[in-house]
Order: sequence, then structure tokens, then C-alpha cells
Amino acid sequence: MDEVYISEISWPVFEEKIAAGAPVFLPVGATEQHGPHLPLGVDVFLPAAVAANLARRLGGLVAPPIPYGYKSQARSGGGQQFPGTTSLSAHTLTLVVKDVIHDLGLHGARRFVIVNGHCENAWPLVEGLDLAMTELRRDGISGTKAMRLEYWDFIRPETLERLFPDGYPGIELEHASLLETSLMLLVRPDLVSPELMPDDGPAEFPPYDVTPVPKGLVPASGVLAVAQGATKESGQLLMDDYVTLISEAIAKEFDL
Amino acid sequence: MDEVYISEISWPVFEEKIAAGAPVFLPVGATEQHGPHLPLGVDVFLPAAVAANLARRLGGLVAPPIPYGYKSQARSGGGQQFPGTTSLSAHTLTLVVKDVIHDLGLHGARRFVIVNGHCENAWPLVEGLDLAMTELRRDGISGTKAMRLEYWDFIRPETLERLFPDGYPGIELEHASLLETSLMLLVRPDLVSPELMPDDGPAEFPPYDVTPVPKGLVPASGVLAVAQGATKESGQLLMDDYVTLISEAIAKEFDL
Amino acid sequence: MDEVYISEISWPVFEEKIAAGAPVFLPVGATEQHGPHLPLGVDVFLPAAVAANLARRLGGLVAPPIPYGYKSQARSGGGQQFPGTTSLSAHTLTLVVKDVIHDLGLHGARRFVIVNGHCENAWPLVEGLDLAMTELRRDGISGTKAMRLEYWDFIRPETLERLFPDGYPGIELEHASLLETSLMLLVRPDLVSPELMPDDGPAEFPPYDVTPVPKGLVPASGVLAVAQGATKESGQLLMDDYVTLISEAIAKEFDL
Amino acid sequence: MDEVYISEISWPVFEEKIAAGAPVFLPVGATEQHGPHLPLGVDVFLPAAVAANLARRLGGLVAPPIPYGYKSQARSGGGQQFPGTTSLSAHTLTLVVKDVIHDLGLHGARRFVIVNGHCENAWPLVEGLDLAMTELRRDGISGTKAMRLEYWDFIRPETLERLFPDGYPGIELEHASLLETSLMLLVRPDLVSPELMPDDGPAEFPPYDVTPVPKGLVPASGVLAVAQGATKESGQLLMDDYVTLISEAIAKEFDL
Amino acid sequence: MDEVYISEISWPVFEEKIAAGAPVFLPVGATEQHGPHLPLGVDVFLPAAVAANLARRLGGLVAPPIPYGYKSQARSGGGQQFPGTTSLSAHTLTLVVKDVIHDLGLHGARRFVIVNGHCENAWPLVEGLDLAMTELRRDGISGTKAMRLEYWDFIRPETLERLFPDGYPGIELEHASLLETSLMLLVRPDLVSPELMPDDGPAEFPPYDVTPVPKGLVPASGVLAVAQGATKESGQLLMDDYVTLISEAIAKEFDL
Amino acid sequence: MDEVYISEISWPVFEEKIAAGAPVFLPVGATEQHGPHLPLGVDVFLPAAVAANLARRLGGLVAPPIPYGYKSQARSGGGQQFPGTTSLSAHTLTLVVKDVIHDLGLHGARRFVIVNGHCENAWPLVEGLDLAMTELRRDGISGTKAMRLEYWDFIRPETLERLFPDGYPGIELEHASLLETSLMLLVRPDLVSPELMPDDGPAEFPPYDVTPVPKGLVPASGVLAVAQGATKESGQLLMDDYVTLISEAIAKEFDL
Repeated sequence: MDEVYISEISWPVFEEKIAAGAPVFLPVGATEQHGPHLPLGVDVFLPAAVAANLARRLGGLVAPPIPYGYKSQARSGGGQQFPGTTSLSAHTLTLVVKDVIHDLGLHGARRFVIVNGHCENAWPLVEGLDLAMTELRRDGISGTKAMRLEYWDFIRPETLERLFPDGYPGIELEHASLLETSLMLLVRPDLVSPELMPDDGPAEFPPYDVTPVPKGLVPASGVLAVAQGATKESGQLLMDDYVTLISEAIAKEFDL
Repeated sequence: MDEVYISEISWPVFEEKIAAGAPVFLPVGATEQHGPHLPLGVDVFLPAAVAANLARRLGGLVAPPIPYGYKSQARSGGGQQFPGTTSLSAHTLTLVVKDVIHDLGLHGARRFVIVNGHCENAWPLVEGLDLAMTELRRDGISGTKAMRLEYWDFIRPETLERLFPDGYPGIELEHASLLETSLMLLVRPDLVSPELMPDDGPAEFPPYDVTPVPKGLVPASGVLAVAQGATKESGQLLMDDYVTLISEAIAKEFDL
Repeated sequence: MDEVYISEISWPVFEEKIAAGAPVFLPVGATEQHGPHLPLGVDVFLPAAVAANLARRLGGLVAPPIPYGYKSQARSGGGQQFPGTTSLSAHTLTLVVKDVIHDLGLHGARRFVIVNGHCENAWPLVEGLDLAMTELRRDGISGTKAMRLEYWDFIRPETLERLFPDGYPGIELEHASLLETSLMLLVRPDLVSPELMPDDGPAEFPPYDVTPVPKGLVPASGVLAVAQGATKESGQLLMDDYVTLISEAIAKEFDL
Repeated sequence: MDEVYISEISWPVFEEKIAAGAPVFLPVGATEQHGPHLPLGVDVFLPAAVAANLARRLGGLVAPPIPYGYKSQARSGGGQQFPGTTSLSAHTLTLVVKDVIHDLGLHGARRFVIVNGHCENAWPLVEGLDLAMTELRRDGISGTKAMRLEYWDFIRPETLERLFPDGYPGIELEHASLLETSLMLLVRPDLVSPELMPDDGPAEFPPYDVTPVPKGLVPASGVLAVAQGATKESGQLLMDDYVTLISEAIAKEFDL
Repeated sequence: MDEVYISEISWPVFEEKIAAGAPVFLPVGATEQHGPHLPLGVDVFLPAAVAANLARRLGGLVAPPIPYGYKSQARSGGGQQFPGTTSLSAHTLTLVVKDVIHDLGLHGARRFVIVNGHCENAWPLVEGLDLAMTELRRDGISGTKAMRLEYWDFIRPETLERLFPDGYPGIELEHASLLETSLMLLVRPDLVSPELMPDDGPAEFPPYDVTPVPKGLVPASGVLAVAQGATKESGQLLMDDYVTLISEAIAKEFDL
Repeated sequence: MDEVYISEISWPVFEEKIAAGAPVFLPVGATEQHGPHLPLGVDVFLPAAVAANLARRLGGLVAPPIPYGYKSQARSGGGQQFPGTTSLSAHTLTLVVKDVIHDLGLHGARRFVIVNGHCENAWPLVEGLDLAMTELRRDGISGTKAMRLEYWDFIRPETLERLFPDGYPGIELEHASLLETSLMLLVRPDLVSPELMPDDGPAEFPPYDVTPVPKGLVPASGVLAVAQGATKESGQLLMDDYVTLISEAIAKEFDL
């Protein structure tokens, strides 16, 4: 027990750490298809792992990860039609984030880092955070500051070059592909089935959404790009980048 | 990996199990003070453990536990004023349950068991489930059946007699007390600090709520009764009762 | 006219009484089946009568009772499937309570007693009251205190012994049964049809909810225990207990 | 007991009457200042009395009146600033009406008459009814028809001439004035204090709203026109008109 | 460019004008049938034109008109069943108004004039404005004042006599009729098709709503009274009245 | 009048066009700062112009543009702190889109194209559209198909090369910069003040959000990149690309 998870510490320990200024990390994920070789919880496991590493390094706390995210979209996650993809409406997710941040603020937390692990969550998180901050102000609480980020945006160019020697195709199609598979080989290798990696990608998406999702638009496997080539070592490189670069950003914003 | 957690299986495995009629268990917990000797996540760890045991026995699946519950009340959990107790409003929790059950229903799940681990969740769960069932009917989906239960209601009288030779004081004050501490010694002993068990209980509550919570009403430790005497063996007895009796109830209701 | 009902006094009288510190009682009921021998409004008539008696004794005011409650549940009220049972969703009832308490607070009321007459209302009342108190604080209003109670929890052991010489089976099944029938014989005897008391109870419920409500689970009459033996005298004993014990509690909490 | 009030009949009686096609009347009122000579419940007492008379004549049922209405406005009711005026937000009232009509529809009611007793309620009632009808359609229920009316719109010209020999100033200012006072002398004379009728009216309102309500805009008494001259006989004339004309309208719309 | 439309000025110009105390006009309209001779946007074009004229005269700003209004009703606009009538629910429109007024208040606007162009909008505007004022108070902003009006209520008796020499039938049926047609001939003559004026009016409505709208209740054309006789000159007379009388009211309320 | 704007056509014309299968375009914008040289309505003017051009080419209709968008964010629009930026909460915007699409669907529209002009709107549009499609299905309406797009994503590489000979910095910072300024010079040149173009950009943003927006993060002018070099000719090139490429996409999706 390293005392970074709020769920694993007692209330007196929580009180002490918050009084000492501990930043609180809130990982937000999803229950979403990630191809036949990865489990439905990838978008929770990864931001939770990133957040825990950050909290260990920075003396922070990790709030219980929100395990359900906003509805999967065809172009970023394959879409809701994949079995098992279980999501919240935008309003619901917004309210969850609002309530959690608000309550933590009432308990004295003043520094928040929302670590998003599911692309589609971005805007409900923005809104939930904004509403929480407004409510805290109306409750007479000031001095609160929050960061909100997608962990995958913190990667050094040299890492991308090493992982994608033929050129990085961009984050858009990286769903259940090389990056996430590598990270899962690092974080939860017991849940990866490399032998089941499909080869029906990469997807080719038009620059717009269509509703309902047209048949054939999304690769049948749910993998949007290519997972082949993923390694635990690449996962470690990525995790090192995330932790290093996000730590630097947090230290700068929170004067740590 | 025993393939009971939805977060740990891939979508094709989910699809296969649902097609085979697997009941889906949804544990719902809380992030709530449980005294100085237990962590804030007790109400998640315990129903998740019960649900996993049930799923293993019955061939079911466990949806990701909802880690935030309805606001803690003085007489059942000490109240929101304890540091770290981080909760959802009733409407938010209701919407979360509605969305999750609804999406699972759209994916073919027809048998649900909501396993509640936090007393205050009961009514938002009732309402969320009712709304989900209504929406599924409006979506043209029939044949859905759901059970909703508090796991602690499934205990044999002889177990209570053995654990409380001087008489069972009732479930009302068992917050962070002998039952939960015993179960945590079984499920997550690494998170129990027996040396920190307080002795400022049991609480004596009047038969009504007062808002705001009066000072002195709740024992300062947050433990409402008495934790002393908790053992892992007692936890095993309790878990055996829960799994046996709930399994029987499920088998009866779902004709398993 | 004894000037306890807000609906029966003019605004200057209201203003005067509130300025004098009158506690405001808010009875909350339901429109719910109560067997063939009792009317659908039992859960309104009874808490309204209790509240009026309390207000008379304590110099308080009774706000108009909320006549629709949260959805009836099989194990406590028979369930929504009984004709005439007309209910609000949890969110709606919560908002009603929030709006009413909030407006009364804006008009200067500082002491509230919510008198619940329908088991299923408990949690929406908790939430509505909590939201109202938060809003009042945000409006700059302090010094507000509220009690929330189920009237049937205020009964002396000797009364139970007298009414149930063979042992009290517990409040859970007392829907439309001996206690409520006795009270109705006291409060609205014109609405009781003793000759229609059924004898298909008591119900035997499992310790969990099932949705939809299984056929045969609830006695066809809607009476969950046994109404036979109810008398006006028993109703008077109960009412005396309620008024005496709740008055004492209020006096203690509000320093009356 | 004349068996028109749903709160006063048992569920089997309700079932029988609904099966026979009984129209259901839903009176909706307010808790609102009505000057120093009238009680705060005028807007509930009057539509409830009208509805009961209609139900008796037409074999209908009266649902429990909704005792809280939409926020009082300066030009029609004096405004929220008067002590005791206790209101619901528009959304709350809308949801209440939606839930009540919806549940009654699920129980087989197909003919509804919403009898409004508080001017400001009109649009939340329109919306609540519309939402209920949409939900009932989505639940597969057809054949539902509803009327929505303000009772005071059903008055014969000759009655107005008799009551206002100097010319009818219009319904706009009739708050707590001659019409409502006369009706209260008929319906609840015990709650009228003729000796307290003020003489600070009639109000002179501009053709627009101002927020917040300017000081001096509304007569200090809360009576917007003139109550003097009210009699029980005038009240009876009015009630006769309402019941006769509304009955005719209902008979026409529902083919009774 | 005359710098009255917020959409047409830059943020520094907005800032300057608001700092100088410019009142902000918010026109609110609808997308609603107006017969075969008028376009669906009448209820937006007209209040926007009135507001722009007022802003020019008074040094005010016009916020972007809200182009969708509350659901059309049979007796005032023909009803939702007419093709093209595209509306918001009451709650949605309320939230839009709340958000817009609230944001403008956060930017320093203190004087608001909501100019309604669609009868059915009245109450959602009342509520949205009330909620915005409450939120602004909770945000610590004081000194805000707002007017809310229907532009057609500002007309001199002599104008009505001139336009309706045979007597003014009242505003109730003036939907898509002489007044609106005259105004459109002034404001957007390119969108008027006088040759398509129908002659199936005027409607004869009972004093109550019926849901669903009975067949034959509303004239098939959607014109509720009579459009014949509309002229641009009449439109100018009306516009002059509106601008003159509303300007006087604003000057009085805002001490301009 | 070219009969593409729904606000400018009568209901019979609307009915005819919808019956003929006309796709309906819904432009969604914002009222947001766009530097000192552009007006606050840029995000409405541009998608409305694109939509009108598309509708003319494809025989479609343009619904009234939604003039208020989701809250401006620092990294994409400068943030809410700029005077005049007037926004909706995510839930409000979602409901507006849901209501509008739903009503149009009830009137027979089956092909929708939501044309977004404000980056921050993307997810509320996704959600509003999803909710509308669900409601239409529950209303028994099938065969509906919708596209949702940001117009700026439809640009040929050669156009970018021509406009940015030194390399395209990416869409992220193009707020109030070369692209939008060029388009405004084409669409509403009367509202562009080239002499006021600032030179305090481009912004340098970190890859995360910070709340509240730190001082100095956003260029004081509100222009995130560089507007210099914008020309009407470039605006025409862009518009041509948008209309050509989006038309092709629509034709493909809707089999036109």
C-alpha cells in the first residue's frame, strides 16, 4: 500500500494529505471495446496507471477512477454498436465530475488534475469541471485551480519517431492500436492477447460523423489502426514520457 | 484472469457470454469514511468481492463497480462532513445507473443483479433501475428482469449468533464495525489497521435526521458501533452466507 | 379555524408567526393503494394529522401537504401496479421539496420539520432538504435547521406490546394493516370500510427487490400484513405517542 | 363521502370507475398571498371545489389537488416577495403534472381535465400535459384526450354585468378581489375576514414585467383590484356558471 | 453598420458600450407557421426589428435573437402540427434565456430588455430571467434590472381604431393576421405573398385547450383571424407606436 | 429570396420541399470574441453562409442558425473571460439541438446536416443529435440519417499550401486568424476592420487546460494566431473548397 489511492486510505490520512496541499488526480475512463486482443477496461487502466505514477512522484492522491465514459464515437472508438461498450450520456458524466470535484473541494482539495483516458470524455469533463468550480465559488471557496488533460498528448517527438519509424499516423486512429497495446503490455499484460490482434485496419474515415454509423465504416475488429509491433518496452517509453512531461507541467502550474 | 470482470474481457468474449444468458452484476459502492482503521473504499471493495464470487459461481459478468455513492447520512455512515467522503447527488447516481443498465440492455443483457454496498444508495438504485427498464421497453426490448439487493441482508441467523454471542445490535450501526471490518480482513487485509480501531462507539441516534448534523451526534472516529472482535474467519463466514444465499435467490428468480 | 394550516391563514398572519419563530411542518404523503378497506390518501391524511397536532401544541405552522409521493415499492407498499397508485419520480419529488423549503426559507422560516407519511419518500426528502439547505446558504441565509422523520418511528414499547400482544412483526409489513387502519379510524373514520378488510396477508417477502414485480408476490388485496383488530382506541394510543415523542424531540432540537 | 376524491376511495373503487370511463379532474393551485382578508390557499380551494362539483355532475374523479404553483408574478398575483407565497419552479411544476398524468394514464385513465386555479400555472401545465401525452404514446397507450382550462374563463356575460354593474375591469386584476372573495364566501366562508378587506387598490400596472419587482408597484395589501361588494350569492352565481359551462364543454369534447 | 447588433461588433466595442451602461435587448422569437403568405420566421423578424429600432434610439445593444420558441399552441399560433413549426421545450428555452442573460451579466450588463415576439414564449422567458437573476446574485453581482415585454402590448388606442375601424377583435387571434402582415410588409416585404392570403378565418376557439388538437379547430391555412387589409403604412404606424411607447417605458425604468 | 432559409419560406413551401426529400442544414455557431478586427458573430455568419451555399446547390433547406454556442475555451477561442462572449452550458445546447432535430423529424425531415462553426460545439452537437435520433425512434420514426461536420475540415491540400506557403500551422490556433478573416472578407466584408488586426499572436499553448484561465496565457487581442495576409480571394478559395467537398460528401451519404 503506497497511500496514493483515496479508496485505500482512511479518512484521517486523507485529511492530513489534503491539509498538506496534495493535488488530487481524477482518472476518467470508459468501458469500451478495444478489439479482440484488449479488454473493455483499457481506458480506465491506463489513465489510472498514469495518475498513480504521477501521484507517487508528486505526493498526490488518486480519486477512484470513473469507469464509464461518454458514448463511443465511430471515428475515435468504433461506436456504441460494439458489444460491451457501456457509456454515460454527456449530462450524466458531466454531473458525476461536477459532484466529485465539488465534494473534494468542500473537503479542502484545491489542486485538481483530471486525467482523461477516453477521447470522447473531453468535453463532458470540461463542462463538469466548470460547473464544479462555479459551485465552489458560490459556496465561498476560493483558491481552487484545476488542470485537465489527455495523457497521450504528453509524448516526446523522439519517442514517436522510435515507435513509428515510418511516420506517426496521428493520434486519431490510435484506438486499440500500437500505443494502447504497448501500454497495456506494461500495465496489465495478463489482459492482452497478442495472438488475437486483428489485421483489418487501419480505418479510413471521412472528415465527418454519420448517424447511424454506416455498416462497413469501422473495421469489424474495432481496432482503428494497427496494433502489431506493440511491446512492453514501447509501453515503458510512453509511460516515462507521460509521467515526466505531465509532472513538469503540474509542477509549473501548481508551483510544486 | 477468470473472465468475470467486464473490464478484463474483450468485446467478443462479452458478446459470447451475454448471448449465453450470463447475468450481469453491477456493484455500487461509495467513497466514504470508515473510521481510522478502514479505507475509504470499503463500500466498493465489499460488494465487488461479493459480486465476483457470485459471477464465478453462476457464470455471470461483473460490470465495473460504481465507486461513488449517494451522500453519506449521519445515522448510517456518519455524514458528509467526514474528510474524504465524496458522493454523488441522488439525481446523478440515478442517471449513472440508468445509463449503465440501459446500455447493457441494448447489448442484449436481460438479467441484472444490482449489488449495493452502501446503505444510502438504495433509493437512487431503485429509481435508476426503474428508469432504465422504462427506457428499454420504449426501445422495444422486452424480457428484461432485474434483482436489486443489499448484500448484508443475506445472512443466516446462526452466523449472527456466532458473531454476536451477546446479541446482534442490528445492521443500522454496523458502519465500519465488526461486520465490515471482518469482511475487509478477508478481502483486502492489507488495507486494515486493527491497531487503529477506535473505542468511541457505539453511537446513540435518535429516530430522526437533523440537518445540519449536530456536533457530537456522530462518534468522532466515524465508527458507529464496535469493530473490536473482527476476524478474517468471521469475514469468511459472512462471505459464505452472502454467496450461498444470494446464489440461491438468483437461481430461483432467473431459473438457473 | 385554529390557524395552524398555512393554506388557511392570510399572509400577514403567516408573516407574524414566522417572525415569532414558528417551526414549519411539511407533511409529505402519497396517493397509494391501501387495500380495499382504506382510501388511496392514507399516507397524506396521517402525517397531516400528526403535523397539525404537533403544530397546535408547539405553535407551529403546517405547510400544504405534498399529496403525491415516490413510486410505491412491492415490499413496502405493494408496488405501482395497483390501480390508483399515482406517484412522482424521485427527481420530481426532490425538486418539490427543495422548492418549498427554499421558498419558506426566503420568507424567514428557520425551523423545519418534514413529516413523512410514506416509506418510499424517505430518500427524496433527504435529498430535497439537502439541496434546499445548500441553496439557502448560497442565498446568504444562515441559521436554518431541519428535522426529517417518519412519524411511525415514535412509538413507546408499551404501546406496541398492547397493540401486538403476540409480538410486533415489525414496521416493514404494516402497510394498510393494523397501525394505519387504527389511525384512520381515529382521523378519518368515514373513509374506513372495516367490512372490506381482506385476509390474504401477511406477505412473505424475500430480502431483495425484483423488477418487474413478480405475479403473486404481493397479496392481491394490497394489504401487506393484517388489518383485523384495528380500533379507534389503538389509533388514539398511537397518535398520543407520536405527538408526545415528536414534540419532545422537536423541543430538544429547537430549544423550545 | 361522495366518492369523487381519489384520495377518499379505495383502489378497487378507483379501478371500477376508471374502467367505466370516468374523466379525471386535476385541480392545480398555489400557496399565494390573497390579501389580508383571504387565506393563502385560495387558489387551491377554488379549483378543487369547481372540480368536485364537475366530478359529481359528470361521474368523474378528482385527483389530489397540487397545492403549490408556479411563482407569483407582480401583475397577476403580487409577486413572490409577499410572505407565505411558496412556489415551485416552472420545471418542477411541469414534472409534477407530467408524472401525475402519466401514472393515471398507465392506470387506464383516458380523459383528463386539468382545472387551473392560479394564472401563473398556465404554461407549466401546458408543458407538463404535453410531455405526459408524449410519454404515454411512447408507452404504447393511445386514445388519450385532455382538456386544460382556467375555471374563471367560463362565465356568462349576464353574470359579469350583474356583478360589475359599472363595467367589468377584466380578469387581469381580479386577484384577491371581488370574484375570488365571493367564491371563498361560498366555498370556505370560515376563512374569509371581510373586516380586513383593504382599500389600497386597484393596482395600475404597466404592460410589461420588471425584475426585481419595483417598490410601490403592487398595492401593499396584495389585493390587486377591489374586494368590496363580494357576497356569497355572487359566489354561487359564479360557481353555477363555471359548473354549467365547463360541464357542457366536457360533454362536448368527451361525447358524454 | 450601426453597431447595435452584438453579432456585428467586436469585443472591445462591446466592452466599451457595456461599460457606458448600454441596455441589452434580447429578442426572442419562434420558427412557426404564419399562413401561406408569410414566412416561418415572422416571430423572429419582428421583435428583432423592434429591438434594433429601440437600441438605435437608446444607445443599446441587440443580442442575437433566439430563433426557436416554445411550442405553438392551437389557440394562439395554430399548434405544432403545422409543417415547419419547430420549437423548443419549455425547459430548454428557459435554460437558453438563463444562460444568455447570466453570461451577459457576468460581462457587466446590468440593464436587460427581453423583447418577446411569440406569445407562447412568455412564461419560459419569465422563468429563464428569474433563474438568471438568482444565479447572478449568487455570483455576487448586484444592481441588475430587467424588463420583459411583448412588443404588441405597446399600441395607442387611436392606432387600433385606425387599423380596425369596425372594432379591434383583440390580440388573441392576430396570428398571421392584419397586424403581423402589416409589420412584415414594413420589415421584410420581400417575404410577403399578399396573393396567397387565405380567407378561411377567423377561427372560433373555445375558452380551453384540447390535446391532441382536434381536427377542424384551427383554420387550415394557419391564419387565425384575417390578413386582408394589411398595408406597409399600417405596419409603420404600429412600429412607431412600439418604438415610442417602449422607449418611454425603458427611459422611465432605467432612468435614461 | 432563394427559398433556402426555413425562416423565409411559408409552411406550405416547407411541406413541399420536405416531401421532396430536401436535406435540412442546421448551422450552429457562437457569440464569441474574434479579436478587435472581427465581430462577435463570426461563428454564426460562416457556417450559415456555407450551409446556404450547400442548400442552394443541393436543393436543401437551412434551419435558423443557433446563434449561441458552448463555452469558449482558452486554447480554441480564448475563453469566456473576453467581453461579449455569451455562451450556453453544454446541457442547454444539447437540448436545443435535440429539440430542433426532433421537431424537424416529426415534420418529415429525414436527412440532416449539422454544420458546426464553433469548435467547442462539437460534443454537445454529437449528444443532441444522438438524443434526437433516439427520441425519433421511440416516436416510431425510422429512416432518419444525419451528418455532423466542422466545415473547416473540408479543405484541399493545395489550398492550404497556397494560403500558407510557409506551412500550415494547423487548425487549432486559427481562431480569428487568417482563415476566418479571409472568409469574413468574403461573406461580411462590412464587418471586418483590417486596420485593427493585432500582432500579439500566435499563442503558445500547453497541451492541457487550466481553470481558471491563467493571466497571460491568451493573447490580449483574442487572436490566437495571425490574421495578417487574409484576403477576400483566399476566402473564396476556402468557400469553394468547403462547398465542393461537403457537397460531394453529402451526395455520397444521401445518394443524391
